[in-house]
Amino acid sequence: MTRWARFRSNGGQTGYGIFEDTRILEYEGDFFAGARPTGRIFAHDEFTLQSPCTPSKIVALWNNFNALAIKLGKAAPTHPQFLIKPGTSVIGPNEPIRRPIGYAGKIAYEGELGIVIGRLCKNVPPNGAAPFIFGYTCVNDVTAAEVLNENVDFPQWCRSKGYDTFGCLGPVIATDWDWSRARAVTRLDGVERQNYPLSDMIMPPEELVSRLSHDMSLLPGDVIACGTSVGIGSIKDGGTVEVHIDGIGSLVNVLSPSAR
Amino acid sequence: MTRWARFRSNGGQTGYGIFEDTRILEYEGDFFAGARPTGRIFAHDEFTLQSPCTPSKIVALWNNFNALAIKLGKAAPTHPQFLIKPGTSVIGPNEPIRRPIGYAGKIAYEGELGIVIGRLCKNVPPNGAAPFIFGYTCVNDVTAAEVLNENVDFPQWCRSKGYDTFGCLGPVIATDWDWSRARAVTRLDGVERQNYPLSDMIMPPEELVSRLSHDMSLLPGDVIACGTSVGIGSIKDGGTVEVHIDGIGSLVNVLSPSAR
Repeated sequence: MTRWARFRSNGGQTGYGIFEDTRILEYEGDFFAGARPTGRIFAHDEFTLQSPCTPSKIVALWNNFNALAIKLGKAAPTHPQFLIKPGTSVIGPNEPIRRPIGYAGKIAYEGELGIVIGRLCKNVPPNGAAPFIFGYTCVNDVTAAEVLNENVDFPQWCRSKGYDTFGCLGPVIATDWDWSRARAVTRLDGVERQNYPLSDMIMPPEELVSRLSHDMSLLPGDVIACGTSVGIGSIKDGGTVEVHIDGIGSLVNVLSPSAR
Repeated sequence: MTRWARFRSNGGQTGYGIFEDTRILEYEGDFFAGARPTGRIFAHDEFTLQSPCTPSKIVALWNNFNALAIKLGKAAPTHPQFLIKPGTSVIGPNEPIRRPIGYAGKIAYEGELGIVIGRLCKNVPPNGAAPFIFGYTCVNDVTAAEVLNENVDFPQWCRSKGYDTFGCLGPVIATDWDWSRARAVTRLDGVERQNYPLSDMIMPPEELVSRLSHDMSLLPGDVIACGTSVGIGSIKDGGTVEVHIDGIGSLVNVLSPSAR
């Protein structure tokens, strides 16, 4: 397993490389095709982590875990059910989630596994999907819960989940990593709220990539948020959400009451 | 009024400039900030029009015309109701709409006005929105109609409208142009199917830009598809759809039965 991170150096430059907890071994060139080491090493106090990729879109799944489907009384879908979170929603580890101006309602966390696409992917068969998966990251699919069903005629999936800072990604992308034995754990202000096995997924990563690649072209850096399971809830202003997946690490973000 | 086009020259280069029906006066530099003439002119047989911008996202409105809201018995919304079509859905004039592989159902046209954003736009007040509008284009918001309501638990707005080639834009971007006196006309195989006044919009462009800029950052080149009105219908394989708005021109696309 390798863990890749994007970072900003103390000098203000953006780079990427292999993350080794206390340091980053810098690489250069196309992140997804042809990365090569520069030989430079950044010590733990010489960088700040950024979102590990900059997706053109996040394809965010609804109803993709059996436990939550059963709890909500929903039938398992026969095709991935999704909305699109725009690239402008993305933030990285330790960046603040911002409460939208004029919205005083509940803001929910949803801890999820994220698939990072590595190559242009279109109409790929299920058994051919693996090479298009670069790796995996943690996602907090933040939602303005009271916007979602504000209009009885039109569920506002894109609006409630598309605000700037509502697509938290990180801390790294794990490659050559087995998702099927891992659990997603979400802690709110240090208290465990979600702890579910990724193996409970209704449609697993390779099937998701194949099926979604028949719905639209997936681009390098695009993220598929695999959907959440039981235990979602709302974040108080100032609250801290940690999404942890063994092997990937902990994605931590605080809900800031202040707008930009 | 000025009409801006993106084009590919016969030599294979992509450029942009002022479109004068029989020729293009080429410009260079940042399209949205600092365009300057190159002095080169491309005659009508020396270029092929491309989509006039390359949006990171299309924010596509639902229920934004009074006539259609009345026909469907829907209350006028108090905030723009939207879905997101990804940038990968975009095609330009005369490019084929492609039927998705494995989908044999109805494919619908929706003729619409498109707003092209010119500057990073976030939390902008309604009376300050005008400077963020670069200009206007025609949109055919293509929809795989039978995908939309295939799942009773989850209306698939993003999926049914997000397929590659389902976001037709063009032929040009009209700047310094008054949308309020224009009509959107859609012709299917030469027969008029839609002909509605843009002034029937529930939320007009400046209000849309302001309100949507509170939902997410809008980037230069992003397109807001203002929603459609009465007269939508389905396209047969091989059928031709023309969306015409006086001042902008005609956006023509054929539905190809063949998949890529």
